[in-house]
Amino acid sequence: MSTAEVLASVDIVALRMNDRSQLDILLIRRAQAPFAQQWALPGVLVNGLTADASLDAAATRALAVKARIKPRYMEQVATVGDAVRDPRGWSLSTFYLALVAPDTPLGDEDLSFVALNAVLDRRFALPFDHAQLVALACERLAAKSTYTSLPLYLISQRFTVTEALAAFQVCLGQAVQHTTLRGRLERMKQHGWIVETGEKNYPKMGRPQNVLEHRPQPSAAFVFDRSVLS
Amino acid sequence: MSTAEVLASVDIVALRMNDRSQLDILLIRRAQAPFAQQWALPGVLVNGLTADASLDAAATRALAVKARIKPRYMEQVATVGDAVRDPRGWSLSTFYLALVAPDTPLGDEDLSFVALNAVLDRRFALPFDHAQLVALACERLAAKSTYTSLPLYLISQRFTVTEALAAFQVCLGQAVQHTTLRGRLERMKQHGWIVETGEKNYPKMGRPQNVLEHRPQPSAAFVFDRSVLS
Repeated sequence: MSTAEVLASVDIVALRMNDRSQLDILLIRRAQAPFAQQWALPGVLVNGLTADASLDAAATRALAVKARIKPRYMEQVATVGDAVRDPRGWSLSTFYLALVAPDTPLGDEDLSFVALNAVLDRRFALPFDHAQLVALACERLAAKSTYTSLPLYLISQRFTVTEALAAFQVCLGQAVQHTTLRGRLERMKQHGWIVETGEKNYPKMGRPQNVLEHRPQPSAAFVFDRSVLS
Repeated sequence: MSTAEVLASVDIVALRMNDRSQLDILLIRRAQAPFAQQWALPGVLVNGLTADASLDAAATRALAVKARIKPRYMEQVATVGDAVRDPRGWSLSTFYLALVAPDTPLGDEDLSFVALNAVLDRRFALPFDHAQLVALACERLAAKSTYTSLPLYLISQRFTVTEALAAFQVCLGQAVQHTTLRGRLERMKQHGWIVETGEKNYPKMGRPQNVLEHRPQPSAAFVFDRSVLS
């Protein structure tokens, strides 16, 4: 690579909520140098040789080609760029936050969902500055979870209030008042983002719960007029 | 440029509030092709040939070198990239929102502050996709102005409530309740972000107003727990 070139990539922080209501992150075992065989964020290079119509298209391609996953939600978080993050030279990474359905399967032994906390705590080391990208994506998720409906993309489209509460709490990293959340879901119902299915879920413990259905609109996230923590 | 390369730039949407409480945007007359002599966003290319330590450093350089301006606030908005936005090939632009002091001077006839609304309305045409970048930066400013103190960077560090109200309203593009804003400024006072100077401003019309002083902390923007519009 000549010094006048820039290495530009798109990297994806794809999160899934597991059945213990914890977040896992999608990692891929790198086939090529640098850092061959190490677990890292899935990503692709973007340049004039690839057919990507845009950066967003490249991000969709990264998950589709590398992991055969179609996320339920994806947004660009930011772009980092400097002379030292990649041993090959000055490089840029535009990184995305993706939320995938809880039953998203993986069909390849070079793909794995790993405990997000292990990556955030640096117990599970990632190459490049990927751990920092993960931390920034999680900050974005937490910030947006205070005033939008994003956490609902981590649970089944048909869900109970208990499941929604678990999703909000794991995204925010703190407790959310049950009554506050119920108020938010009511607001969403009034705007057609959530409907009552009329069905009930019968847990082993406790009372039967109404099953709701999430019906996202094209704007992708419902925006509340105040923080869920206030 | 070979087809394997990517053209990466940093572009700045720098806003200043004028004495009619309207926003102006900083434009620069391009010296070189493409679009030579046209007014466009100030920006620089980033690659291994420049000494930038990071993208953020390149953004600071763009304003310092091209316009000799040091903004009071700057944040990365997003990165756009595709095959068509630049006639030279696949290109990326990481663009920043910058807020500059109301008395920021311009020392060069190739620099100008132009009415932001004329750019947003497309009455004043910009090359590349710069008009779209401006629109996205203004959306970010409006969104953040509902729950942060960002508009205060557009007025003098010593200011009156009337001036703060004008800044919030122009950033949001809608009216803000006087009492809501006063409540916000009180919250900021409690946290040391604003202090009473003990001085008064005597306008031609109306009652004298207390002069406050904005004392931003390193986190740059004070975050309120609910929307200023709610």
